[in-house]
Amino acid sequence: MVMPLNVMVQLKLANRPGTLARVLTTVAEYGGNLGSIDLVSVSPGHKVRDLMIGLHDSQQIQPLLDKLAGLPDIELLHVADRVLLAHRGGKIQVVPKRQLQNREDLAVVYTPGVARVSQAIYDRREYVYDLTMKGNTIAIVTDGSAVLGLGNLGPEAALPVMEGKAMLFKSFGEVDAVPLCLSVHEPDAIIAAVAAVAPAFGGINLEDIAAPKCFEIEEKLSAMLDIPVFHDDQHGTAIVVLSGLINALKVTGREMGSARVVMSGAGAAGVAIAKILLGAGVGDLVVCDREGAINRERKLDVPSKAWLAGHTNRVGKRGSLQEVVTGADVFIGVSGPGLLVREDIRRMAPRPVVFALANPEPEVDPETIYDITGVLGTGRSDYPNQINNVLAFPGVFRGALDCHARSINEEMILAAARALAESVKEEELAADYIIPSVFSPDVAAHVAGAVGDAAVKSGVARKLPQVRETFEH
Amino acid sequence: MVMPLNVMVQLKLANRPGTLARVLTTVAEYGGNLGSIDLVSVSPGHKVRDLMIGLHDSQQIQPLLDKLAGLPDIELLHVADRVLLAHRGGKIQVVPKRQLQNREDLAVVYTPGVARVSQAIYDRREYVYDLTMKGNTIAIVTDGSAVLGLGNLGPEAALPVMEGKAMLFKSFGEVDAVPLCLSVHEPDAIIAAVAAVAPAFGGINLEDIAAPKCFEIEEKLSAMLDIPVFHDDQHGTAIVVLSGLINALKVTGREMGSARVVMSGAGAAGVAIAKILLGAGVGDLVVCDREGAINRERKLDVPSKAWLAGHTNRVGKRGSLQEVVTGADVFIGVSGPGLLVREDIRRMAPRPVVFALANPEPEVDPETIYDITGVLGTGRSDYPNQINNVLAFPGVFRGALDCHARSINEEMILAAARALAESVKEEELAADYIIPSVFSPDVAAHVAGAVGDAAVKSGVARKLPQVRETFEH
Repeated sequence: MVMPLNVMVQLKLANRPGTLARVLTTVAEYGGNLGSIDLVSVSPGHKVRDLMIGLHDSQQIQPLLDKLAGLPDIELLHVADRVLLAHRGGKIQVVPKRQLQNREDLAVVYTPGVARVSQAIYDRREYVYDLTMKGNTIAIVTDGSAVLGLGNLGPEAALPVMEGKAMLFKSFGEVDAVPLCLSVHEPDAIIAAVAAVAPAFGGINLEDIAAPKCFEIEEKLSAMLDIPVFHDDQHGTAIVVLSGLINALKVTGREMGSARVVMSGAGAAGVAIAKILLGAGVGDLVVCDREGAINRERKLDVPSKAWLAGHTNRVGKRGSLQEVVTGADVFIGVSGPGLLVREDIRRMAPRPVVFALANPEPEVDPETIYDITGVLGTGRSDYPNQINNVLAFPGVFRGALDCHARSINEEMILAAARALAESVKEEELAADYIIPSVFSPDVAAHVAGAVGDAAVKSGVARKLPQVRETFEH
Repeated sequence: MVMPLNVMVQLKLANRPGTLARVLTTVAEYGGNLGSIDLVSVSPGHKVRDLMIGLHDSQQIQPLLDKLAGLPDIELLHVADRVLLAHRGGKIQVVPKRQLQNREDLAVVYTPGVARVSQAIYDRREYVYDLTMKGNTIAIVTDGSAVLGLGNLGPEAALPVMEGKAMLFKSFGEVDAVPLCLSVHEPDAIIAAVAAVAPAFGGINLEDIAAPKCFEIEEKLSAMLDIPVFHDDQHGTAIVVLSGLINALKVTGREMGSARVVMSGAGAAGVAIAKILLGAGVGDLVVCDREGAINRERKLDVPSKAWLAGHTNRVGKRGSLQEVVTGADVFIGVSGPGLLVREDIRRMAPRPVVFALANPEPEVDPETIYDITGVLGTGRSDYPNQINNVLAFPGVFRGALDCHARSINEEMILAAARALAESVKEEELAADYIIPSVFSPDVAAHVAGAVGDAAVKSGVARKLPQVRETFEH
């Protein structure tokens, strides 16, 4: 199959007449379509240049590169592919909502007109929601301490993830989101930085901040600020897991109050999932960390694990994950790859619900258990039932912003999960369709509506939300 | 003259059948075109609604409002005009550079594809400039302590000004700018907040921060961070004033080295103007504050004023502004309204250069001195020679970002001023045209090129800038 390909080739060219011309001739010989030629650096002996080369047939790239590398006076420094190219120059931009055409436009949006708007907000501070970006804009805040599954890569390396998230916020929820990647890592310093920048934002989405500091940071910021603070790795995941579980229990004929649920993972996501499950009425819940079932007998220094010991595992089960999963109706993994095998799943109740969400490699290989599970969900897009946060966070913040919410509380989180579950119609519900596709057009609006209603009912809304039907994307 | 008008009318309507219908009928009677009807709040007795009403003829608004206010069960709470309406919902948004159409797009810009980009930046941190928003994005930071001429209005009231500035950055310089309005006001807390959020940005534009703390904040942040920190109230103003002065001296046949210059105002702008003038070769400079000429005899607690005393007023002039302006070739005011009258200007050298930049009311009424000045400049758009920062800051940051500059140093600031002066062609230069219009299409590109070259020459560029011809706006 002939596939087109765009690559960026970085070359070091000796400062000799004809060197660049030789490159261009070679590119043309191999059918390459030359785009921009950028000068990266100059030194007395050589120049470094970036060449954008489009090829009709991706197969031609290797022969062309081999030829370029073999030319005299030329060194091939770097070749960038599609993913890297899609990131060149960044993925988001800040644009005016209206064009500035003339002095009169300037006088309205900037001086002298804007002075009246500033004065109006100074006189009555709640006008800031209607007259500025605050009403529709959130900050996505990370310190880069838990970037995807990659660990503590720091703020710069976290930035492309935050930009991707900002794209999702806008595309799925019409929420304007600004990435803020912090160079500070102590909880108090993170809290101080977020509190300092809060005035321009209608909400704070914490992202990829390591456990256990993420709990303290979220808790203290929520208490300090009068805008929602929401750690998506915790609550976004919890919302989607609960919504999937609601439907999976329906499909397999079980009840929330009587299902025996075993979880693996007591990090940010694990703790939040445990809390939302308890809030949704799960009665029999055992959470395991690397040392097995968390119970009151264990010495637990981390406050979040001590909380789990006090609120889950009523009968005080002990033992490894493999042991306590025996007989369980539901397994939820938010931990690491390959912890369970087919034999472990076989010892669960018949046709169990298995959410193996470790990414990219799940807790148990889906291929080996497909035939013995009642419902199987993963974090991956290449299997049915992808448990993906993007189903939750755009609608959650849309709903919170629409009513100028002061916080995102447990009622709103539960409402989001239930709305997401309901967005799969009864007649569509099936073992391989418990959760909608991320591109379903009305999911975010449906979640937003439920979140807004819950905000009003629970007393954290500053105004009534508008009714939204759907979003464009 | 018939002018169309859009207004937002907020009404409190009693919860009685037919109340809203009566409003709509009235609007129609007066030829109003009804837009959105928003529900603001509901209580047992009444509802509050926002109505958008378009009128073909703005004259009809008052009779309509009088009629509405007279209707039973209805209270007219609020009417918003064009300036406020132009601010509804904010003035900027954060948008993806490309659309997300399908799962494949998601996999490129978000997980799993983005993980490789994060890893690449982690391995080689300078890639953050090319692969993220950092290469084209700055933060506009304020604590709202000196909002326009209005004073310490706080961060929320400052936000519409910062959004307006972000619009100008994008429209005139293709720079993405994110407003950050800080809830902290102590210099150390502001410094800590800006340093914490710096990783995602390629530059920091400080804005509307009161003197003298602005000096300490800029100085310390510049020393801490490896990206440019630029207080526009200081250096943006200084650049435009110097460029105007270069051309005004040409027009009036004076030289920088021999001109006698008197300034009024030793705040953020005044100090920076004094520094740039000294850097540009002005030899005879006297700066006045409210107590008159700053000289070595005065006890000056503020370090910036002590600096002025040590570096200006070589002959140790004493006395009030009115006294020291006598015989001067140039007056530059960045202070307050109405400090000088025609008689003061008459005591200056013949046909002097007068830049009376206090806004909206200049230091001396332009109408009263027009005939006796050689060149007259103000901060206002309704006179010729508007000294407007928007001529400087978009090009300055464009130039700094294009070469991934580590700072904006004095060489770059001087280069910006000279480039701006040069952008008025010799043959166009006249007493009423010393400075280009803000909508001149090639000004920002011209300034950017000069700033980039100066960055390379002075050793603060990380890479060579591309050549730009012009920007769209």
